Amino acid sequence: MSDLKPNQLGIVKRNIKRADPAAVEKLSRFGVATIHEAMGRTGLMKPYMRPIFPQAKICATAVTALLQPGDNWMMFVAAEQIQPGDVVVAACTTENSDGFFGDLLATSYKARGAKGLIIDGGVRDVADLTEMGFPVFSKAIHAKGTIKATLGSVNVPVVCAGALVNPGDVIVADIDGVVVVPAAIAMEVADKAEAREANEADKRQIFADGTLGLDYYKMREGLEKAGLKYID
Amino acid sequence: MSDLKPNQLGIVKRNIKRADPAAVEKLSRFGVATIHEAMGRTGLMKPYMRPIFPQAKICATAVTALLQPGDNWMMFVAAEQIQPGDVVVAACTTENSDGFFGDLLATSYKARGAKGLIIDGGVRDVADLTEMGFPVFSKAIHAKGTIKATLGSVNVPVVCAGALVNPGDVIVADIDGVVVVPAAIAMEVADKAEAREANEADKRQIFADGTLGLDYYKMREGLEKAGLKYID
Amino acid sequence: MSDLKPNQLGIVKRNIKRADPAAVEKLSRFGVATIHEAMGRTGLMKPYMRPIFPQAKICATAVTALLQPGDNWMMFVAAEQIQPGDVVVAACTTENSDGFFGDLLATSYKARGAKGLIIDGGVRDVADLTEMGFPVFSKAIHAKGTIKATLGSVNVPVVCAGALVNPGDVIVADIDGVVVVPAAIAMEVADKAEAREANEADKRQIFADGTLGLDYYKMREGLEKAGLKYID
Amino acid sequence: MSDLKPNQLGIVKRNIKRADPAAVEKLSRFGVATIHEAMGRTGLMKPYMRPIFPQAKICATAVTALLQPGDNWMMFVAAEQIQPGDVVVAACTTENSDGFFGDLLATSYKARGAKGLIIDGGVRDVADLTEMGFPVFSKAIHAKGTIKATLGSVNVPVVCAGALVNPGDVIVADIDGVVVVPAAIAMEVADKAEAREANEADKRQIFADGTLGLDYYKMREGLEKAGLKYID
Amino acid sequence: MSDLKPNQLGIVKRNIKRADPAAVEKLSRFGVATIHEAMGRTGLMKPYMRPIFPQAKICATAVTALLQPGDNWMMFVAAEQIQPGDVVVAACTTENSDGFFGDLLATSYKARGAKGLIIDGGVRDVADLTEMGFPVFSKAIHAKGTIKATLGSVNVPVVCAGALVNPGDVIVADIDGVVVVPAAIAMEVADKAEAREANEADKRQIFADGTLGLDYYKMREGLEKAGLKYID
Amino acid sequence: MSDLKPNQLGIVKRNIKRADPAAVEKLSRFGVATIHEAMGRTGLMKPYMRPIFPQAKICATAVTALLQPGDNWMMFVAAEQIQPGDVVVAACTTENSDGFFGDLLATSYKARGAKGLIIDGGVRDVADLTEMGFPVFSKAIHAKGTIKATLGSVNVPVVCAGALVNPGDVIVADIDGVVVVPAAIAMEVADKAEAREANEADKRQIFADGTLGLDYYKMREGLEKAGLKYID
Repeated sequence: MSDLKPNQLGIVKRNIKRADPAAVEKLSRFGVATIHEAMGRTGLMKPYMRPIFPQAKICATAVTALLQPGDNWMMFVAAEQIQPGDVVVAACTTENSDGFFGDLLATSYKARGAKGLIIDGGVRDVADLTEMGFPVFSKAIHAKGTIKATLGSVNVPVVCAGALVNPGDVIVADIDGVVVVPAAIAMEVADKAEAREANEADKRQIFADGTLGLDYYKMREGLEKAGLKYID
Repeated sequence: MSDLKPNQLGIVKRNIKRADPAAVEKLSRFGVATIHEAMGRTGLMKPYMRPIFPQAKICATAVTALLQPGDNWMMFVAAEQIQPGDVVVAACTTENSDGFFGDLLATSYKARGAKGLIIDGGVRDVADLTEMGFPVFSKAIHAKGTIKATLGSVNVPVVCAGALVNPGDVIVADIDGVVVVPAAIAMEVADKAEAREANEADKRQIFADGTLGLDYYKMREGLEKAGLKYID
Repeated sequence: MSDLKPNQLGIVKRNIKRADPAAVEKLSRFGVATIHEAMGRTGLMKPYMRPIFPQAKICATAVTALLQPGDNWMMFVAAEQIQPGDVVVAACTTENSDGFFGDLLATSYKARGAKGLIIDGGVRDVADLTEMGFPVFSKAIHAKGTIKATLGSVNVPVVCAGALVNPGDVIVADIDGVVVVPAAIAMEVADKAEAREANEADKRQIFADGTLGLDYYKMREGLEKAGLKYID
Repeated sequence: MSDLKPNQLGIVKRNIKRADPAAVEKLSRFGVATIHEAMGRTGLMKPYMRPIFPQAKICATAVTALLQPGDNWMMFVAAEQIQPGDVVVAACTTENSDGFFGDLLATSYKARGAKGLIIDGGVRDVADLTEMGFPVFSKAIHAKGTIKATLGSVNVPVVCAGALVNPGDVIVADIDGVVVVPAAIAMEVADKAEAREANEADKRQIFADGTLGLDYYKMREGLEKAGLKYID
Repeated sequence: MSDLKPNQLGIVKRNIKRADPAAVEKLSRFGVATIHEAMGRTGLMKPYMRPIFPQAKICATAVTALLQPGDNWMMFVAAEQIQPGDVVVAACTTENSDGFFGDLLATSYKARGAKGLIIDGGVRDVADLTEMGFPVFSKAIHAKGTIKATLGSVNVPVVCAGALVNPGDVIVADIDGVVVVPAAIAMEVADKAEAREANEADKRQIFADGTLGLDYYKMREGLEKAGLKYID
Repeated sequence: MSDLKPNQLGIVKRNIKRADPAAVEKLSRFGVATIHEAMGRTGLMKPYMRPIFPQAKICATAVTALLQPGDNWMMFVAAEQIQPGDVVVAACTTENSDGFFGDLLATSYKARGAKGLIIDGGVRDVADLTEMGFPVFSKAIHAKGTIKATLGSVNVPVVCAGALVNPGDVIVADIDGVVVVPAAIAMEVADKAEAREANEADKRQIFADGTLGLDYYKMREGLEKAGLKYID
């Protein structure tokens, strides 16, 4: 974990330790639910974070931004820190749904190689972003403009939609939500996700053939012990 | 109405009285708004219940499940009680948006002949469910995993998203929401819906031709009596 | 601004001063975010106002309706006041998400030349409205039926989703939200939007080519003065 | 349970079977949390139901009212059905926070012997109600006036704040919330609550003396089995 | 109504037309619910506006402030415009709950003769404000600090918590909420409130003596016509 | 910061490094708003965290607990880790408002020397807790009972109500909210709070004497530069 205090203001950290690219690549093969399970059911952002178009998907390393309400100055500062394969994860010092991000910033981010944006705030120019295929997961869609007046930070640890994100962590996002994989355990999580997934194909066939989970998972004894009563 | 207390815990009722299949078939021809009107404007769940894909539609008899927060054990118990043409209606003993249901359970439910799921909670694997064409109406989409540790019930009366559901009731769901039709009045409601619908086609033409509702429904006198003032 | 008190009840104003059609036409070329910026960042409704289908777009002059909770009588009264090119903007005297509007009213409104509906409440028959291509921006989708019993008003100033709307104002709505342009400044705002938009195409190219906003907007000095510290 | 359909409209049931007065008296000695536990953790309304003053307490038999949004006509109809020792439980056919109840109705209810009001809606004249010592548990405080135009019902089963209430059920409300005890099991629940409470005084002393719940409830083995790891 | 556009930015209007002091004095005798009724059930702010202490009461003329999110600069500008007997009504250009106001500003406002604050945002130092007896009605209590960087306005018309407020309007606030009385009709409203109140004392006695509202208001015939059915 | 991953499950850390007692004592002299300012406006929990009684105040070192929804097992495990002067800070792996804590646990915590509880969830037995003078800041009051079945953790870093809390951090809570002071900077923050507070008494007198903030803070030039226009 970073030495910086979470949500510390006025700082841009240039050199961040990104997760192993091989781990990122491997994680990109799995969905958010699978990865969350592979992490022992941790790492999820709150369910109010929704994609701006249903097919939106991201698997990328986090450049974090900490914003002030109604102020997107740090979104510009963050742009310079983006490397190909990054996703910007923007938190705010308070709850705010203003439109911190639109098509011009998206053009700039895309030119830097960004894979998308995760923002605990609002986004606008959604039709353009959709046409560009630039995936954004946000708390709101809101046309409200923002100013550039107060410092936040870039690449400090942030709490975004209830989850702690350190710069360099892997962010996986799809229609099921957004999950944060700490960089240090990214490959371990990817391996567990793979094992879990392998397992799933078989199970899917078994259930498709009509076997009940009650039997497959041998739940009947446990249910009886717990006192479940069947009546007619 | 069932003899069981609503939300009673630790019970699975095997033999439930499902609504007349002919009534279900007839109800399936109408939309939620029409059926709600035909029932004298009763039976609707809260509007936070939304489909996971816009074309989702369900008309089926209810198998109810009462869940504990963060626990989907009863979703497996419910599977065994599903008969072709049923929909599972899952309530929870408290507000909780965890991902109680995903593609494996959907595979199992589909194999049993289920027509979909109504859940006052969260659902995950939404991309897979959409591909499978398995309709779900839920309070949230959330990847959060659940445990299997505490008893709820299956086929007791439940309050789901503000509506009382007895096992065997007909559930109709479309993009306008979810409505519950008590089994005992299902055919009567279907008949009224049919009458109402017949009526609608004519009205639609009349309004398309430019006749105002003010005139068609003879509202002018009532408005004047109520004191409406026209000014220029 | 109208002489009528905002939210005054029991009044229908017949002759309203609609914004200049040329201004409406010109505003129709721009998005909500652009127009909101051109107005000095004012005029937006709250972000809970969402389109019933993603492609929904409206640019039209407002006929306002003030509704009572659970009562859509004034929606019928409003119909008569619609002229081709109008949009109905419906507010309510309290928070209410009932389904005040459906396919029959939409048919009637369309026959009158309405371009759509903005409603701080619920709407139903969404599948039909989508098929008709009738755009609605609402707070909720809800099948709940309404009565016709109590007077509201038509064409009085209303507060709708946090924004003041005077009859005749221009309403622009797209996936980014809903913005209100006072009739008196509609052409001025359209001109500013045009100037802004012209500017954007160039900027988009510059950012696509890799120039950073930090440099293009000359932000580095300001950031340094504000005390931003870069660390490694 | 009543033969009436839940939320059926246009009905006033005069003769309802109230819970045994002895059971009501006995239940009045216990708090909401204790009674909810004694019922196997069922029967609670949603936690948004809050008292208008902190000391508000109710233990009484339910006269139910089903209201239409913005309309308190049925509150007057309910008044006539009140017998000494009753509490009115008011639900609404949709979400609505208008001020359905104020000091005049409270005066009338008090004159009939009512012990208070539970309302899934708004209440007003709160300063007067507080001075009168008339306890109300509501979803909101709101001065918004209501009309008297549309039928609801009195003494039909209603879903109020997520809980099914049958006329005659016992309602217990205090600062922890509101719980519904079905009339048929009221004495059984009261007995269990008493047993539970007796038990509590001892436990309180044991914990006050420093014994840990871990030891008192013998949790250590279970925690170890579940895999809890202690580290330094 | 002011000539200024609602929510126009960058303006301080010095000379505002305050409501007649006699009307303010007369309105101060009545509660919010009574005044709202006397205005034909208009003028209420949303019910999320709550007092910071239960006895808080305000009846005063409005000095309006329009704030930017996270920025309380205009609260200082507003201070200079306060005259004895004013209340500051602060709206924000977007939803924001930061702590725009605390004990120092309250000290300053009090020194100017302010009667309190209505703010569609957050407030802090609530213990101090309570001790000072300085009434505040707000959307939130939040310690979050704010900056002084961006212009809003003072004494332009604002939409605050869903209600339009013109500078000089009378604001009445008590535990039932906040109501806005346009300056031009303040005395008329006060007179109607007085008439209404006179009426209430009698009614209260009548209801205390056991007469039912059903009889006093002669509702029985209307209910029967509407089809209400009494069953046993 | 701890070496443990935030929200890691199944761990109890026994030896935590608590903040310097002198710093805790010094911080206890200041309010939440002052401390938040002294930290450069960081560290606040979300404003939905409210005290169960208005006078509730806490200044103590954090023992953290990570709970599963509907499960308070870890509240018992946490009890053993409490040392005099600690406060338990309980987060949950998902949003849940069940009543995880009541009078028996409070008795136990008090016996261990706990100063109170901060919980991103529900609490019950609020009348008893108030009588005991045991301060709790929570998201909800809810009588809903919980089970003891699934592992969370004690003394791992947690995200509670949007703020990262490491075990040993200082928590200050009062009616303005809850702020987290990292242990490593506790004395530095206390010193800054003291300096700030010293300053406030003078300012309060100056403002009470009628000097405007506009003049005291020399804002007039900045406002003019920003373009503020005074009109009559």
